[in-house]
Amino acid sequence: MGYVNWSYEVLKKFCNDVFTSFGFSADEAQIITDVLLLSDLYGIESHGMQRMVRYHKGIEKGMIDVHAKLEIVFETPVSAVIDGHDGMGQLIGHKSMEIAIEKAKKSGIGIVTARNSNHYGIAGYYAKMACDAGLIGFSCTNSEAIMVPTFGRLAMLGSNPIACSMPAEPYPFFFDASTTVVTRGKLEIYNKLGKPLPEGWALDKDGHPSSDAPDVLKNIISKNGGGIMPLGGSTEALGSHKGYGYGMLCEIFSSILSLGMTSNYCMQGTKGGICHGFAAINPAIFGDPVKIKEHMSRYLQELRDAPKAEGQDQIYTHGEKEIAAMAVRMDTGIPVNDNTMLEVLDLCEFLKMDFSKYFGDYSPEKSNSIFENNY
Amino acid sequence: MGYVNWSYEVLKKFCNDVFTSFGFSADEAQIITDVLLLSDLYGIESHGMQRMVRYHKGIEKGMIDVHAKLEIVFETPVSAVIDGHDGMGQLIGHKSMEIAIEKAKKSGIGIVTARNSNHYGIAGYYAKMACDAGLIGFSCTNSEAIMVPTFGRLAMLGSNPIACSMPAEPYPFFFDASTTVVTRGKLEIYNKLGKPLPEGWALDKDGHPSSDAPDVLKNIISKNGGGIMPLGGSTEALGSHKGYGYGMLCEIFSSILSLGMTSNYCMQGTKGGICHGFAAINPAIFGDPVKIKEHMSRYLQELRDAPKAEGQDQIYTHGEKEIAAMAVRMDTGIPVNDNTMLEVLDLCEFLKMDFSKYFGDYSPEKSNSIFENNY
Repeated sequence: MGYVNWSYEVLKKFCNDVFTSFGFSADEAQIITDVLLLSDLYGIESHGMQRMVRYHKGIEKGMIDVHAKLEIVFETPVSAVIDGHDGMGQLIGHKSMEIAIEKAKKSGIGIVTARNSNHYGIAGYYAKMACDAGLIGFSCTNSEAIMVPTFGRLAMLGSNPIACSMPAEPYPFFFDASTTVVTRGKLEIYNKLGKPLPEGWALDKDGHPSSDAPDVLKNIISKNGGGIMPLGGSTEALGSHKGYGYGMLCEIFSSILSLGMTSNYCMQGTKGGICHGFAAINPAIFGDPVKIKEHMSRYLQELRDAPKAEGQDQIYTHGEKEIAAMAVRMDTGIPVNDNTMLEVLDLCEFLKMDFSKYFGDYSPEKSNSIFENNY
Repeated sequence: MGYVNWSYEVLKKFCNDVFTSFGFSADEAQIITDVLLLSDLYGIESHGMQRMVRYHKGIEKGMIDVHAKLEIVFETPVSAVIDGHDGMGQLIGHKSMEIAIEKAKKSGIGIVTARNSNHYGIAGYYAKMACDAGLIGFSCTNSEAIMVPTFGRLAMLGSNPIACSMPAEPYPFFFDASTTVVTRGKLEIYNKLGKPLPEGWALDKDGHPSSDAPDVLKNIISKNGGGIMPLGGSTEALGSHKGYGYGMLCEIFSSILSLGMTSNYCMQGTKGGICHGFAAINPAIFGDPVKIKEHMSRYLQELRDAPKAEGQDQIYTHGEKEIAAMAVRMDTGIPVNDNTMLEVLDLCEFLKMDFSKYFGDYSPEKSNSIFENNY
C-alpha cells in the first residue's frame, strides 16, 4: 500500500463536487474544500482528504446537519457567541473567524466562541484567515476527550489544538499544535505499522505509560480509560501539568465561554457538540503594523540563523515546513494514501459520482503505487 | 542549612522597609512587597524573598532605575503600549495590568504590552489581579535567553512564562508556567544538591542533552551555548516545537508588539530590556458571567473528581496547590532558606537597617534550623 499523487486542481474539483452532492451550496462546498486541502498542501495528511470518510459518516449519522444555519446568540463590538446548531465545523469556523476579523478591523480585537459544532479541520486554517487579512489570528477547538489530565486515568480533555498566525516576511509565523504530546492520528499510524509507541505518548486504562498501540486505541474507543498524555508527559518532572494547562486554555475559549460542551461530553451518541474559539487582533492597535511586522521578521530570521545543535542543519520557525510542503505539493501533486482512495471510491458509489471522471483509470484495489509519503 | 519560618506580617513589614529604603514611595514599596510575598505564599520560593538580592544588584548596577516614570507611548480603547524606562518590573507590571483591567471594564477587552522593564516576579500575580476583578487575566514576560529552540544549541528565548487566571468556585483557575521544561531555579537547586539533572531538561554547549548541572549553568552564564529545553524536550517526537511555539507566543505579546527587546538581547550589559504582555477579558462580553463561572467551576470539579491513575490519589486543577500552600503559610509562616537570610543580613547592613528589629536574635550564621521546606 502506497501513495498516489493527485494535482491540487483534481482534488479541488472532486471535493467541491462531493460536498455539493451532500447538499451544501457551491459556496459552502468551496469553503469546506479549501480547509481540507490546505491541510493536505501543508503536509498535515491526517486532517485533509483522509477525513472525507469521517464527514461522510457524520452526515449519515445525523451528527452533522447539512442544512443547519448558525446563529449569533450574543454579540458586542469586540465579541460574539455562535450556536452552530450541529452544522459542518468548517462552515461554522469560517463564518466565526470572518466575524472576528470584521470586529478586529473596526474595534481592534474580535473574539468569537462557538458551540454545537463539529470537527472543523486544522485550527491553523482559521488563524491563517486573520493573518491573510494583516491581523494576528488565533483559533482553538476542543474535541472528543483523549487527553488524560496529570495523575488521572480517564481522558477528560480533547487533543485541544491552539493555533496562531502572524504576518512576517518572507513567510508568516504559523503555529498549530495539539496540547497533547501527539494526536490520535500518530497512534493510528503506529498501530497500522505494528510498531510499539514511543515512550512518553500514551497511557493504559490504569493510567500507566503504555507502548501498546492496539490496546490504547481499543481503550480510547470503548472509553475504558487511558489515552494520550498532555504535552510534557504524565509526570510533573517534564511539565505534564503545563500541557494540561494549555489544554484548559483551549477549553476556556471554546467550551467554557460559549457555555458549550466540554470535551468529556463531546461526540457521545449522535451529538458532536464540538466548540471552537477564534480571535483576531489588529497589530495597528499597538503602533505601526509595518514596524511590528519588520520586528517579528527580524527575530524569526535570527532564530533561523542561530547556531545549530551538532548534527542538525536547520532551525525551523513555525510555518516554514508548511510553506515548503505546499510548494512541493503545488508542483508535484498531493500524495493520497491508497486506503483513503478506497474510501473515496466508496464515497463515489454512495453519491453516484463517476470516480473515473476525476481519477481516470487508477484503481485503488489494483494500485501498485511505489511512491512513499515521507513528509 | 535549613529553613526558618517567618510570619507573613514580619516579612511584609521588612520588605516594605527595604524598598522604601531603596527610595521607592510607600505605595510603590507595598506593590513590590505584595508581588514578592504572593510568590512565597503560593510556595514559589524561587520568585519571592530569594529574589531580594537580585533586585538589590539590579538597583546597584543601574539596571533598575528607582525613580523611573513609566510612559504610555500608544493607546486605543482596547490596548496600550508602555515604555517602562528601565523601572522596577513589579511597578510596570502592576500599572500595565491596571490599565488592561480598566479597558476591559469599559470596552470588554484590554491588551497591554510593555517594553524596557525588568524582572517582574511571577506572571501569575498580574493574571490574578484581573481575576480578582472578576475578569479573565493573562500575563506573560520574556527574560534573559535560556530556552534553546528545537535543533539549536544557543538559547534564543527566555523561560517565557504564560499565566492565566479565571474566576471559579471554590477557588479560581490559576495557571502560571514557563514554556521551558523547567526554570533555571530548578537547575540551581540540583546544582546546590550536587545531583545530576533529570533527563529531558537541559542541553550542553553543543546542543546535546546533558545532566551536568554545573556545566550547563556555567555555559548559560558565559553564553557559551546550551540551556534549557522547551516544554516537550529537544526532539519533535515529544513536542519540542510546541514548547518553542508557546515561547514564541509569549515573545509576540511582550517584545514583538511593544517593539522591545527579544529575549536574545535582554539582560546584556547594564540594560534589562525585559518586556511583558497583559490581557484582561470581561466574561460578560460572552453572556452571563455568573453562568460562565458556574460552567467553569463544574468542569474543574469534574476534573478533580475524575478517576485517578493507579497509585495517585488526587488530580489537581490549576491553582489548587497554590491555594493550599497559602493556607498553610498564613497559618504557620513562610519558610525562608538560611542562605537567603544571609543575603537579607547583608542587605540590612547595606541599607543601615536593624536586622534584629524584624528577626530578633535569629542569626543565619549560627542557624541550626531543622525545618525542611518540602513544598
